[in-house]
Amino acid sequence: MLNLAVPTDDGWFDRVRDHLDVILVDHCHLEKRAASNALNMIFRYTGKDSILRELSDVVQEEMEHFVMCLDLLEARDIKFIRLKPSPYAAKLKESIERQEPKAFLDQLLMAALIEARSCERFKILGDELEDIDPELSAFYKDLVVSEARHHMLYTNIARQFYPADEVKERLSELAAIEADAVASCTDAPRLHSF
Amino acid sequence: MLNLAVPTDDGWFDRVRDHLDVILVDHCHLEKRAASNALNMIFRYTGKDSILRELSDVVQEEMEHFVMCLDLLEARDIKFIRLKPSPYAAKLKESIERQEPKAFLDQLLMAALIEARSCERFKILGDELEDIDPELSAFYKDLVVSEARHHMLYTNIARQFYPADEVKERLSELAAIEADAVASCTDAPRLHSF
Repeated sequence: MLNLAVPTDDGWFDRVRDHLDVILVDHCHLEKRAASNALNMIFRYTGKDSILRELSDVVQEEMEHFVMCLDLLEARDIKFIRLKPSPYAAKLKESIERQEPKAFLDQLLMAALIEARSCERFKILGDELEDIDPELSAFYKDLVVSEARHHMLYTNIARQFYPADEVKERLSELAAIEADAVASCTDAPRLHSF
Repeated sequence: MLNLAVPTDDGWFDRVRDHLDVILVDHCHLEKRAASNALNMIFRYTGKDSILRELSDVVQEEMEHFVMCLDLLEARDIKFIRLKPSPYAAKLKESIERQEPKAFLDQLLMAALIEARSCERFKILGDELEDIDPELSAFYKDLVVSEARHHMLYTNIARQFYPADEVKERLSELAAIEADAVASCTDAPRLHSF
C-alpha cells in the first residue's frame, strides 16, 4: 500500500535505539519541512485550484505535528537543535524532474514516498517501543495513520493530473531512488537513515 | 494601537470599490504569503524556542484564512489567478536589515506593520461594505480581530528579544517606510495600494 521499493531491514531499530533523542529532533525538523514542502506546492501550482485546499490541510496538520514534537522535546528536556541535513533529502531532490509537466508529478510522488517511509518507520517505532517507552510508542502509533493518509493524498492528486499508467511507472522508478537514498544515509542515526 | 505612521486616506475605498474581485484575489495571495513568512521565520530562528509555537499558530491561522478566501472566491465564481506582485512588498523587503541581530527585529516589526495595515483596511472594508455587500462586510469584520492579534504577537516577540526603546524607535522608522510603500503603490487596486 505504501509503494516502497525496499522495506526497512530488521536492524534499523537496533541502530537507532540508543539515539532516540536525535530521532525526535530529526522528526521535529521533518514535520516543519513537510509543511514547507506543501506550502511551496501551493505557491508553485496556484492555478490548480482543486489541490489548494488539500495541501492547506496538509500544511496545518504538519504544523500541529511540529508542535506535538516540540512539546515532547520540552517534556523530555531535549534541546531542539539544528541537525546536519541528511543526504536523504538531497538525493531525492536531485532526482526530481525540473521541467513541467513532469516536475509536478515528481514532486507529488516524492512527497508521497517520503510520507510512506515516515509511516513505515513510525510503525516500527510504535511497535518496538511498546515496552521500552510506552509514551513514545503511543505517540508514533498515533502518527502512522496521518502519514499513510498523506501518502494517499499525494498519490491521489497525481492520478487526478496524470494517466494512471504514467503515475504507476514513475512511482516505481522514484521508489527505487528513494530506497537507494535511505540505504546511502549511513552517517548518523535519522528517521530516514539506513 | 496599530503603530501605523499614516492612516489610510478617505479616498481608498472609492478607488477600490469597483475592483472588489481583484481585492479578494489579492487578499487570498496575502494570506498565503503571511503563512509563508511565519514559516520562514520558524526555519531561520529554530534556536529561539519560545517563538516556535506562536509562529506555528500563525501559520495555521493564515492557512485557515487562505481557505476561507478560496471558498469566497469559489462562491462568487472568481478565478484565483496570479497577480502582478505589488511594489509594496518589494519596498518593505529592501528596507529590512540583512545582518543579525537587527535582521530578526526588522522581520518581526515589518510583519507587525503588514498585519496592522491589513487590519486597518479590513476594518474599512467591513464598515464601507455593510450596505453594499453584507456577506463580504461580515467576512472582513471577522478578520479584523485576528490581524490585530497578529500585529500584537509580532511586536510582543520583538519586546522579548530587544530593549523596549530600540523596538519603539525602529517601529517608528519602519512605519514611515511602510507608509511610503503604500503611497507609492498606485499601479493597480490592491489591499495595500494607495
